[in-house]
Amino acid sequence: MTVLYFLDLLGTLVFTISGTLAATNKQLDLFGAYFTGFITAIGGGTLRDVILGTTPVGWVSDTNYIFVITLGVILTFLFKSLIMGLRKTLFLFDTIGIGVFTIIGIEKSLSLHIHPLLAIIMGLFSAVMGGVIRDTLCNDIPLIFRKEIYATACVFGGILFVSLNHIGLSLAINQFLTISCIIIIRILCIRYKISLPVLKH
Amino acid sequence: MTVLYFLDLLGTLVFTISGTLAATNKQLDLFGAYFTGFITAIGGGTLRDVILGTTPVGWVSDTNYIFVITLGVILTFLFKSLIMGLRKTLFLFDTIGIGVFTIIGIEKSLSLHIHPLLAIIMGLFSAVMGGVIRDTLCNDIPLIFRKEIYATACVFGGILFVSLNHIGLSLAINQFLTISCIIIIRILCIRYKISLPVLKH
Amino acid sequence: MTVLYFLDLLGTLVFTISGTLAATNKQLDLFGAYFTGFITAIGGGTLRDVILGTTPVGWVSDTNYIFVITLGVILTFLFKSLIMGLRKTLFLFDTIGIGVFTIIGIEKSLSLHIHPLLAIIMGLFSAVMGGVIRDTLCNDIPLIFRKEIYATACVFGGILFVSLNHIGLSLAINQFLTISCIIIIRILCIRYKISLPVLKH
Repeated sequence: MTVLYFLDLLGTLVFTISGTLAATNKQLDLFGAYFTGFITAIGGGTLRDVILGTTPVGWVSDTNYIFVITLGVILTFLFKSLIMGLRKTLFLFDTIGIGVFTIIGIEKSLSLHIHPLLAIIMGLFSAVMGGVIRDTLCNDIPLIFRKEIYATACVFGGILFVSLNHIGLSLAINQFLTISCIIIIRILCIRYKISLPVLKH
Repeated sequence: MTVLYFLDLLGTLVFTISGTLAATNKQLDLFGAYFTGFITAIGGGTLRDVILGTTPVGWVSDTNYIFVITLGVILTFLFKSLIMGLRKTLFLFDTIGIGVFTIIGIEKSLSLHIHPLLAIIMGLFSAVMGGVIRDTLCNDIPLIFRKEIYATACVFGGILFVSLNHIGLSLAINQFLTISCIIIIRILCIRYKISLPVLKH
Repeated sequence: MTVLYFLDLLGTLVFTISGTLAATNKQLDLFGAYFTGFITAIGGGTLRDVILGTTPVGWVSDTNYIFVITLGVILTFLFKSLIMGLRKTLFLFDTIGIGVFTIIGIEKSLSLHIHPLLAIIMGLFSAVMGGVIRDTLCNDIPLIFRKEIYATACVFGGILFVSLNHIGLSLAINQFLTISCIIIIRILCIRYKISLPVLKH
């Protein structure tokens, strides 16, 4: 098992927890909560694979994802208050997950000879679309459209990854640097309350 | 024409009617009502085929579906009050449709060598995602996320189908038993008001 | 560069502007506005390609689309009041875009031997689904479901295109006639306030 695959499953777990937690504000039942956690975890990768045509999509070909998602839903149901108290730790794992999803999206696209610029967009899709679908199903305007959460970090991380890949840096080091870059940008954005301008009426 | 194909078209008709009826609460025009009925009928199967990569998706390759959907919209427009009075009959056909869609989703997945556990999820997707997309477009939180309607029945039916398929039972008998199981579970859930726990805030 | 390809890029630009403008009513930030413009422009074609299985979808294989979309978002940010004053000109370009997207969807479907009736539906999808996804993400019931905007014009244009194609008219003349037909129907509908009946409760 590669480190990236392990981090991918970790990201899937954290995304599931964040999706299932979102369901608690909406009075969803167990099925709704499971489904919301599930779609948050696999939505981005599913959309990426469907757009690229690499089907059956990832989670349909590997049962590990559904086991990790089920684990995430059960953990959230059993230890909800505990998890709510671990928000800072969750935030770190969540950002790692975002970085990993971005990298996987870019790597997959580049291997299909997609233009690097569009590969970055596919990396962004992998990272953010699960949350967008979650918010849309829960009848909210996607949080990421109103308040900078991690899109900018993904884009800068993506540009770094594509550039370092272009100059031939070894993949493992590139992955490490890109994820570090995404974590640092995201922490800086939150620490210094950096956000994008709003398009006013 | 096989029995399953006939039941598939029947399910498509009933799903169209339920989708078109949903439009009456939202003051949609004829196009919006048609589209809502259409998406309710084909949404689940479309998502399943797109995720599995079996494209062009089913309804694009067989004009019978669009004729049945058009018939469903016309019937709803002409005989709305009559249909509203037939809710019990509709409920039975609706449950048959759910069972058929579940089975078709599972069979298609198994034929692509998808793991049985994930095949059950694809069966569930086939049955419920049309309604999820309908509710999302109509700006509601999907009904099935808040109140147990038929997800549990699909899952139990799916487990039965996969198990009986595994021990080599003939397909026709398996299909009959699975649909019967789904109908019985659903009726029991409604009769005895059995529902899943809600994830509280 | 063919005329249809040029008009396709023009339609993409106008759809981006309409999507980005929609974001101003929702207090979205720059990322949200960009994403909304992007999805309005490519949503219909993406859904069409995914349903037909012609993947990677169009905009992933041709960087011109992302450049035109970026241009559209920048223009909207810089010249918002000017653009708001040009609504009549925009309306014409918007209708041209709708006609072009309809034709591209039909042509692509026919080339895959899809039945003409379903090809017209795929043409309609190409033209309207970007707006449907935009409205759903912005938490509105799709405008096109409540008030006839251009679905009828697309359908009549589509029927004309398929018929003229069937009798062997040259493609360029057929494209010109179809787009003209769609523009005329849409202007007549607005001028004479022609709309579809609403399905009442």
